[in-house]
Amino acid sequence: MKGLGIDIGGTNTKIVVINGRGRLLHEERFHTLGESGGYGDFMNRLTGCVRRLNKIWRPGSVGIGAAGDVDPQKGLIRFSPNLEKWRYAPITGPLNKLTGVPCTLENDANMAAWGAYELELKKKYANVLAVTLGTGIGGGLILDGRLYHGATGSAGEIGHNKIKPGGERCHCGAQGCLEACCGSYAIMRDARKAIKNAGAFVRKYAAPGRERLNTICLTRAADRGHKTALRIWREMGENLGRGLADAILLFNPDCVMLTGGVSRASRHFLGPLKKVFAAQQIKTPFQKVRLRVAKNADLGVFGAALFGMERVNNRQRRR
Amino acid sequence: MKGLGIDIGGTNTKIVVINGRGRLLHEERFHTLGESGGYGDFMNRLTGCVRRLNKIWRPGSVGIGAAGDVDPQKGLIRFSPNLEKWRYAPITGPLNKLTGVPCTLENDANMAAWGAYELELKKKYANVLAVTLGTGIGGGLILDGRLYHGATGSAGEIGHNKIKPGGERCHCGAQGCLEACCGSYAIMRDARKAIKNAGAFVRKYAAPGRERLNTICLTRAADRGHKTALRIWREMGENLGRGLADAILLFNPDCVMLTGGVSRASRHFLGPLKKVFAAQQIKTPFQKVRLRVAKNADLGVFGAALFGMERVNNRQRRR
Repeated sequence: MKGLGIDIGGTNTKIVVINGRGRLLHEERFHTLGESGGYGDFMNRLTGCVRRLNKIWRPGSVGIGAAGDVDPQKGLIRFSPNLEKWRYAPITGPLNKLTGVPCTLENDANMAAWGAYELELKKKYANVLAVTLGTGIGGGLILDGRLYHGATGSAGEIGHNKIKPGGERCHCGAQGCLEACCGSYAIMRDARKAIKNAGAFVRKYAAPGRERLNTICLTRAADRGHKTALRIWREMGENLGRGLADAILLFNPDCVMLTGGVSRASRHFLGPLKKVFAAQQIKTPFQKVRLRVAKNADLGVFGAALFGMERVNNRQRRR
Repeated sequence: MKGLGIDIGGTNTKIVVINGRGRLLHEERFHTLGESGGYGDFMNRLTGCVRRLNKIWRPGSVGIGAAGDVDPQKGLIRFSPNLEKWRYAPITGPLNKLTGVPCTLENDANMAAWGAYELELKKKYANVLAVTLGTGIGGGLILDGRLYHGATGSAGEIGHNKIKPGGERCHCGAQGCLEACCGSYAIMRDARKAIKNAGAFVRKYAAPGRERLNTICLTRAADRGHKTALRIWREMGENLGRGLADAILLFNPDCVMLTGGVSRASRHFLGPLKKVFAAQQIKTPFQKVRLRVAKNADLGVFGAALFGMERVNNRQRRR
């Protein structure tokens, strides 16, 4: 059996076809253009792509991950901060009609969690919290080897845990969320404030051909010992440690898996993060938990494909 | 089949015998005296009591809940803040030897969660967060109709979610924990600071025969419109709302059940708590979640008895 996986992000939509052993057979991506084109236009492009791939590969399942507030039971996106005009936008219905195979929709962070569990952790741990560090911060929970959705499909929303009440404004509208301290937009907000001559900083540290002040540039500066860059990553690690500590107390996982683009700077923030764990008063859950950083940057779309197949194979009951 | 339930608290140890339908057949309690008598003395008294009840009732299971850091797999108490000298104290081993029936040990907040789920929620909700409001604040999680332990048996530790970083010192040693704002010791710390003439306050508002400045007295004062008392309960509700909001974002439960002695003041703190929920930016989980206050104050010991029976009946797999 082959599986088709789709990851609908605010910027890009990724599609993969994989085989039963999780090996990549085909991949492509296109701009979501969720705002400018709108939902109808997006679905035209998506169904065109799926129709073509369906003819070639004949997948036995379609698994979809989407950013935002997703209704897994009805297969629709209730609301997504980056696709603001979409409300209760049906996704699985049209794709199921088109392909004739079972289609599954989940929150993208849940799918990244499933991908991490299947591909990188090899199902070694029963209870996993996977945290996606990107522009925003998402989370997904594997409990007792099964994806835990919660009542409305939004379980694992660690990004909006309030770690600094009254602190910086978050994209969600609230203040002091973990995301407002450790999402890449927050890290770069702090960096722009702290770095006096941004032009010179970018010229010195940016990756060749990518002359922008972003987290990659900030990581490269930290690699070369830039004190402000090191401080920003240290503070980010301390804040992330606080947010994860609350979640570890609640959920007592065997493993916390960090994924997403910002996790690539882990060499600069994992140390401060672990210090926060070591200073916890309730020791047992922190002694037990294993901290991992994902190798694969596309866990979300692989996880979606794998989860769709799992559902079809009846190994994954709905929770 | 009958079941024996034991709740080992810092102050009192409660024992019940129930029948298969959850009806109370017998109950008794004694002072734990965990510190003054020590573990050996406590176990002598407990086994004496269980030996006697075993002869009379012949229970088919023994379920035990204990405060603190409990190892459900090994059946021992790793550490308990109120039984400080007990370290890795075996509980199920001696009782199993004595009774010859399966003995189960769990964290007491987990057992209160199980009791709430079985007795008051009638298994109506799949995903339940039960929060015990007492001197401290404990939590237990029912996921998909099963008790969720986590990796080391301590899942649901909502009491040490940091809601006011750098705030008041908690019994656990950290600062700004939910418990340090909303545990009864914290409520009464605030009350003692705010109430100028405590003697007159107690004389006016305390329950007859219980002339002490405690949460019952504070509730009675609020009932009669005392402004400071009302303010303290309002602030407690706002803080509890913040702690629960973080947990609801993470766990997305169908129901939050409040239990424990302090939950009896809910008429004074539920309003402010609900306002915190209503002000959340991520709406769906808060629109879905049902908030309940337990009727039974002894859910912990009933839950322990019921959980022991459930385990024996193989309806409850270990997680």
